[in-house]
Amino acid sequence: MRLPRMLTPRTTASAHCDLPCGVYDPAQARIEAESVKAIIEKYLANEDFEFRTRSLIIKEQRAELVKHHLWVLWTDYFKAPHFEKYPQLHQLFNEATKLAGAAGAKGTTDPAKADELLAKIDEIAKIFWETKQG
Amino acid sequence: MRLPRMLTPRTTASAHCDLPCGVYDPAQARIEAESVKAIIEKYLANEDFEFRTRSLIIKEQRAELVKHHLWVLWTDYFKAPHFEKYPQLHQLFNEATKLAGAAGAKGTTDPAKADELLAKIDEIAKIFWETKQG
Amino acid sequence: MRLPRMLTPRTTASAHCDLPCGVYDPAQARIEAESVKAIIEKYLANEDFEFRTRSLIIKEQRAELVKHHLWVLWTDYFKAPHFEKYPQLHQLFNEATKLAGAAGAKGTTDPAKADELLAKIDEIAKIFWETKQG
Amino acid sequence: MRLPRMLTPRTTASAHCDLPCGVYDPAQARIEAESVKAIIEKYLANEDFEFRTRSLIIKEQRAELVKHHLWVLWTDYFKAPHFEKYPQLHQLFNEATKLAGAAGAKGTTDPAKADELLAKIDEIAKIFWETKQG
Amino acid sequence: MRLPRMLTPRTTASAHCDLPCGVYDPAQARIEAESVKAIIEKYLANEDFEFRTRSLIIKEQRAELVKHHLWVLWTDYFKAPHFEKYPQLHQLFNEATKLAGAAGAKGTTDPAKADELLAKIDEIAKIFWETKQG
Amino acid sequence: MRLPRMLTPRTTASAHCDLPCGVYDPAQARIEAESVKAIIEKYLANEDFEFRTRSLIIKEQRAELVKHHLWVLWTDYFKAPHFEKYPQLHQLFNEATKLAGAAGAKGTTDPAKADELLAKIDEIAKIFWETKQG
Repeated sequence: MRLPRMLTPRTTASAHCDLPCGVYDPAQARIEAESVKAIIEKYLANEDFEFRTRSLIIKEQRAELVKHHLWVLWTDYFKAPHFEKYPQLHQLFNEATKLAGAAGAKGTTDPAKADELLAKIDEIAKIFWETKQG
Repeated sequence: MRLPRMLTPRTTASAHCDLPCGVYDPAQARIEAESVKAIIEKYLANEDFEFRTRSLIIKEQRAELVKHHLWVLWTDYFKAPHFEKYPQLHQLFNEATKLAGAAGAKGTTDPAKADELLAKIDEIAKIFWETKQG
Repeated sequence: MRLPRMLTPRTTASAHCDLPCGVYDPAQARIEAESVKAIIEKYLANEDFEFRTRSLIIKEQRAELVKHHLWVLWTDYFKAPHFEKYPQLHQLFNEATKLAGAAGAKGTTDPAKADELLAKIDEIAKIFWETKQG
Repeated sequence: MRLPRMLTPRTTASAHCDLPCGVYDPAQARIEAESVKAIIEKYLANEDFEFRTRSLIIKEQRAELVKHHLWVLWTDYFKAPHFEKYPQLHQLFNEATKLAGAAGAKGTTDPAKADELLAKIDEIAKIFWETKQG
Repeated sequence: MRLPRMLTPRTTASAHCDLPCGVYDPAQARIEAESVKAIIEKYLANEDFEFRTRSLIIKEQRAELVKHHLWVLWTDYFKAPHFEKYPQLHQLFNEATKLAGAAGAKGTTDPAKADELLAKIDEIAKIFWETKQG
Repeated sequence: MRLPRMLTPRTTASAHCDLPCGVYDPAQARIEAESVKAIIEKYLANEDFEFRTRSLIIKEQRAELVKHHLWVLWTDYFKAPHFEKYPQLHQLFNEATKLAGAAGAKGTTDPAKADELLAKIDEIAKIFWETKQG
């Protein structure tokens, strides 16, 4: 059964700009990371020089957006009590953003790296949603 | 019952960069529009000059992102057969992006305008998800 | 005889920012599209790897600007009465922005695609200037 | 008689990206400067706090674009022989970009400053078109 | 005695883009933070509406750059062994980026907050330079 | 002996945003130019297609930042009396920004061009620091 996001309760939404407006959502990082993965798959399936070059240009931008959205969550959403309750959170974000950078999504065209990145984002999202319920 | 996005089936995800990667999601526009609404509410509840100025600066940016994400869906995701099947789609996008601009989210601090914008995005999202199921 | 833009009457200028300031001009999209065409021609005439890669990087940016300038005209300049008078306008903009994207200027190095894009922009510009005279 | 840009000969177009593609046009700086002037006029005619704040936000962006387009012409289009033939050219660009900055379009809401900026851009455009004819 | 940066040994420079190129320097964050402090001081000394609005617009941008440069150091420069040797490093970066955001440089015009931010950046810089010497 | 920037007197810092805040520093251009040089060296040492493409993408961005930081110094920091005292200053900036563009850092992977660019920036920095002492 398919369940589009628009049917999920709106009250789950929460801060992402630096007013702060209070609307954060790990979906922003995940969508970009899914894009990175899809780009890698298309890259591997197409040997055309122009297509491959465009793929690398766009993957670079999307991976940068992954990093940015994760940084925003780490600095703007999560507060001292969260870091106390989830002592692994700093390292999790550091690893996730590294996986989006030169050592991962930016620097390789290995789909396994994209999967690792998605898994890290899901770990973060799981904690995020727990903190919204508490 | 709360149902975070990370639990929705991943196959619902679909194109948003211009490779195209094939990962589009109206959630991107909606999150920014929710932010716009939250900013307006905070603006109305706080008369401090600095806070109000910052609110307007940030609302301008977030509303621009709403426009951008909608434009991408309109140009990059929707194809000729969609526009045939949904003849109202062009006007819907034109009205939605206008509602994010000077005549709406950017130009006012009226929460009703933000609600109208959110409703338009939901109309678009409904059609979007229908086309993904077809 | 050459006739530079600076000699055309200034009153022809009209809105392009989202205040709105009231200064719109299809020249903005056209200049970027001319750039795209020139880049394609230079790309085809030069087989050097570095030059070709830089060409694709820059073409991607210029084509994105074409899309952006067209989207602004479509959402911010054209109003309901224009869309009534020119029922083809929505489709024209949709096709023009698609021609600037993956299916056109971004995705190919075919000069014919760049010419198609320029022709679409000229169709839009013709309507634009008619509405300014009315 | 009105003479829209689309009717001016296309061969007058010339480089503006850093490939370089060879399509430069002072119209890019002028359109933004016209926008700055229009914003100032609207600002002076409207005392609403929100409108005025938005005006200043947008004027800042447009004036920055004026600076950018002028800098590109100065560095990328004009070459050593031009600077020899037009010894005032360096100072002209320096003054024009200063007029777009804190001492002019950004820092004031004085329409006279916007007019000075437009006049400087026209001086530059005049030289630009002379070099294209040579 | 004044000692400009250009006289400091060039070998001290080190990675900051995500190739990575290997040129990082905490000076990037510090210069933006010094700008934030100077803006706050000018803001407090000038009650003109236009000046104050422009100050808040620009402070927002500069503070965002502080956050960005710090995030880059945290994710791209510092590696696992550094975090082991300096266990306070995660929290230090989290606090520094928070001090550049809504709870600090962005959200206030309190010079003390700017000083706190500068002090945090100096703590980070001290560790940074120690790791370069090791 | 190594001498990190954080030990140089803070009073040497001076304007770089367009308030203006009064914090300018040629280090901003230099750090990006050092990055360009490092990218070129890594590019020449690695024949992998993906790495080379990423190098060119990132070099393009870093070289653009060099241009931007230099333009800001030329327009915003230096005033009429400086240009009188240093009559070569206009040409120096024009040559430096050209060296960061298509004819230099952007258009080649020649380390000698990166060295020329760094040398020009150092010439500018020398003058800059002289004007701060006067």
